Amino acid sequence: MFVYADNAATTAVSPKVVEAMIPYFTQVYGNPSSLHSVGQDAKNALEESREKIAKILGAKPKEIFFTSGGSEADNQAIISAARIGEKEGKKHIVSSKFEHHAVLHTLDALEKEGFEITLVDVNANGVINPKDVESAIREDTALVTIMYVNNEIGTIQPIAEIGRICREKNVLFHTDAVQAVSHMHINVQEQNIDMLSISAHKFHGPKGIGVLYAKSGLNLTNIINGGVQERGKRAGTENLAAIVGMTVALQEAVAHMDENNARLKKLQDKLIKGLSAIEYSGLNGDREQRIASNVNFSFEGIEGESLLLLMDQREIAVSSGSACTSGSIDPSHVLLSIGRSSELAHGALRISLGDDCTEEQVDYIINTVTEIVDYLRKFSPLWDDLINGRIESDL
Amino acid sequence: MFVYADNAATTAVSPKVVEAMIPYFTQVYGNPSSLHSVGQDAKNALEESREKIAKILGAKPKEIFFTSGGSEADNQAIISAARIGEKEGKKHIVSSKFEHHAVLHTLDALEKEGFEITLVDVNANGVINPKDVESAIREDTALVTIMYVNNEIGTIQPIAEIGRICREKNVLFHTDAVQAVSHMHINVQEQNIDMLSISAHKFHGPKGIGVLYAKSGLNLTNIINGGVQERGKRAGTENLAAIVGMTVALQEAVAHMDENNARLKKLQDKLIKGLSAIEYSGLNGDREQRIASNVNFSFEGIEGESLLLLMDQREIAVSSGSACTSGSIDPSHVLLSIGRSSELAHGALRISLGDDCTEEQVDYIINTVTEIVDYLRKFSPLWDDLINGRIESDL
Repeated sequence: MFVYADNAATTAVSPKVVEAMIPYFTQVYGNPSSLHSVGQDAKNALEESREKIAKILGAKPKEIFFTSGGSEADNQAIISAARIGEKEGKKHIVSSKFEHHAVLHTLDALEKEGFEITLVDVNANGVINPKDVESAIREDTALVTIMYVNNEIGTIQPIAEIGRICREKNVLFHTDAVQAVSHMHINVQEQNIDMLSISAHKFHGPKGIGVLYAKSGLNLTNIINGGVQERGKRAGTENLAAIVGMTVALQEAVAHMDENNARLKKLQDKLIKGLSAIEYSGLNGDREQRIASNVNFSFEGIEGESLLLLMDQREIAVSSGSACTSGSIDPSHVLLSIGRSSELAHGALRISLGDDCTEEQVDYIINTVTEIVDYLRKFSPLWDDLINGRIESDL
Repeated sequence: MFVYADNAATTAVSPKVVEAMIPYFTQVYGNPSSLHSVGQDAKNALEESREKIAKILGAKPKEIFFTSGGSEADNQAIISAARIGEKEGKKHIVSSKFEHHAVLHTLDALEKEGFEITLVDVNANGVINPKDVESAIREDTALVTIMYVNNEIGTIQPIAEIGRICREKNVLFHTDAVQAVSHMHINVQEQNIDMLSISAHKFHGPKGIGVLYAKSGLNLTNIINGGVQERGKRAGTENLAAIVGMTVALQEAVAHMDENNARLKKLQDKLIKGLSAIEYSGLNGDREQRIASNVNFSFEGIEGESLLLLMDQREIAVSSGSACTSGSIDPSHVLLSIGRSSELAHGALRISLGDDCTEEQVDYIINTVTEIVDYLRKFSPLWDDLINGRIESDL
C-alpha cells in the first residue's frame, strides 16, 4: 500500500488544478503587460485570480501580490517592514524561536545590518503565549512576525490575539500562513493581519507560486527590481498559469476545508492513539491546538532519518522534520524550541496526512511505525541504556 | 488571419513542453528536499535538468541556479557582484544605457547605496562598442553587465569580446541573455561569461522559471533567504515541473536554432523590405547584427500604441516596446539610447516573429501596417507638419 503522508512538505497538484492551468500554457499565453488582446486576456485572468484570492482572505484585490512562493513572500514582508521601520528609527523585530527558516534567516540578515531581533519562547506544547509577544514589543519595534501554524508540529498559534496586540501597540504584524491556509479560515481584517504569506504547493496547487498579502497603504520594498508588474512591487512576467492553478487550488481547499478537517481529525485521533501505544513515544506539540493533518511523534532511542528510510521501503512517505532543512545534521530547531532533547529531536517523525487519506492507510502507518521502531531499537545503544536504567527518558 | 508576433514579450508554451511537465504535477510531485523515494525521484529529475541545461550553456551543473525568471536572475547576479566587490572596496559598475529594467533598476538601487554606475553609450545602430566598455572599466569596477541581445530592437552585442576584456581586466562579467538564448549559440566558458540570466517563457517554456548561471567559485548573495535549496543560494521549494518544462523547451530551441534562424532570416528580410516601402519609416537597430525574429520600425507622425491597437483589431499581436514597460507614457529608453527622437521612439513598432511564422503572415503584417500607418497619418498633426515642410524628419 502506497501512502503519501508528507503533505506538509508538498502536495500532488490536483487534476482539477492541472486542467485549469493548461489553457494558460497554450491558449491564453499572452504577457499580461501586453496591450493587445492576447495580453489583455491574460491580464483579465490575472486580475480575476487576484480578486478570488483576495475574497478568500478577506482582503482587497490590490492587497494581493503574487510571488514565486512562500519563501519569497516571507522575505519581502520582513524586508519591507524593516525598511519602513528604520525610516522611523525602529530597528527591532519580534519573532519566535520556531519560525520557518525563510523567516529566521531573513531576520539573521537584518541582524547583521544592525537590527535587534527578539525571538519569543514557545511553550512545551508548541504554542506561543500572546503575552510574551506583548512583553517583547518595544517602542522601536518595527515588526512582529509569528507563523500561523508550525510546519513541523502543526500547532496553531493565537494569531488573532497577537494581531489585536500589534494593532493596539501600532506595530506591523506579519504571519507566515503557508501551513495554515488550507486548514484554517483566515480573515486578515478581522484578525488584524498586516502581511501574510501563502504558498500554493502546500494545498494541491503548483510549486513556484505564492502570495504576499500586504494591507493597503503599506509600502512594500522590492526584492526583485525591474518591470512594473504587481503594482511595481515585484518585477518579472506574471506566472499566470500557476496563478490560475493556485486560485483553483485555494478555492477547492477552502470549499472543502470543514469536511476535510472533520475527516482528518478522526484519522489524526486514531493515529495519535495508535502511536501512543508504542512505549517511550511522545506526541510533539499540543494535542488539540493543531491542524488535523499533522501528527509529529518522537521515539526514544530512534534516529528519525533511519525510521523514515525504512518506512519508505514500505512505501510510506513521511518526514523527520521539514523538507527545507533535510540533509542537515542539526536537530530540528522547532523541537528544541518546545524543550525536546537533542536525542528526541533527532528521533522525530512528521506524518502529514492528505485529504484523500483512508483509515486503512492510517492503520498501515501505525503498524509499520510500530514494527520499525521495535526493529530499530534492537540496534540502538541509547535504547539499551534506557531500558537497562543507565539513562532516564526525557519523555 | 491571427498572427502572434510578440514573441519577445512571451511565447506560447509548446505542447511538447506541456506534455513533459504534466507528470511532475501529478506523479513526480515530491519535494526534491524530501529523503523518501517520492522526493528523491523529484531530486533526480531536478539534477538531470540541471545537467542538461549546463551542457547547453557550456557550464558545469553546479554552476546552474534555478530562479523564478530572468528578472530574479538579473537581480541576484548584480547584487552578488556588488557584495563581492564592496568587500574589496570596489563600488563601481559598468552597464549600458539600453539594458532591461531588471538590470537598470537594480543598478539604481545600488547607486542609492553608494555605488557608482557608468552606463556606456550605444551607437545609432543599437550596438555597444567593446572599446567603450574597456574605457569605462576602472580599478574599482566590481562588475560589467551588458545584455546579449536587446529586448526591443533585437541587436546582438559583442559579448565574447566584452567577456575577453573583462577577463583581461579581472572584472566580473554578467550578461542578460534572456532574448539571446534561443537565437544564439552560447558557451559561457569560451565567451568568458561569469554570470548569465535566462528566462524560459521567451522560448516556449513556462513563465515563472529561469536560470542564473554563475561560474564556479563565485559566491552568490541570496536575495531569497530560507531553506538550503540551490546549494543554499536560493531558498524555496524547487519549481520542478517548470524546470523540466524549461529544460525541454531549451533543448528544442537549441536543436532547431539554426534552421529556425535561417527560416526567420528570410521572413525578416521580407518584412524589413516591405515596411521600408512605407515613406518616412525607419528600421531601429542594426540591419544585420540582430536576431532573425526581431523587426523594430519607427514611423514618423505615428503613435505606436494606436498602431498596435488597430493591428490588434486585425488580429495581429505586436508591441510598441517591451511588455515590461507598457502603460508607461515615457518614450522607450532603448530607442532614445540609439538617438531616436522622443516622437520616433513613441512611433515604434516591435514585431517579434515566432518559429512557426509563415510568409503569408508576414505579407499580412506588411499590408496591415502599411494601411494603418496611412490611416493614422490622416489624423496626425505631426504628419501634417512634416509633409507641409513645417518640421523636418528625424529619420
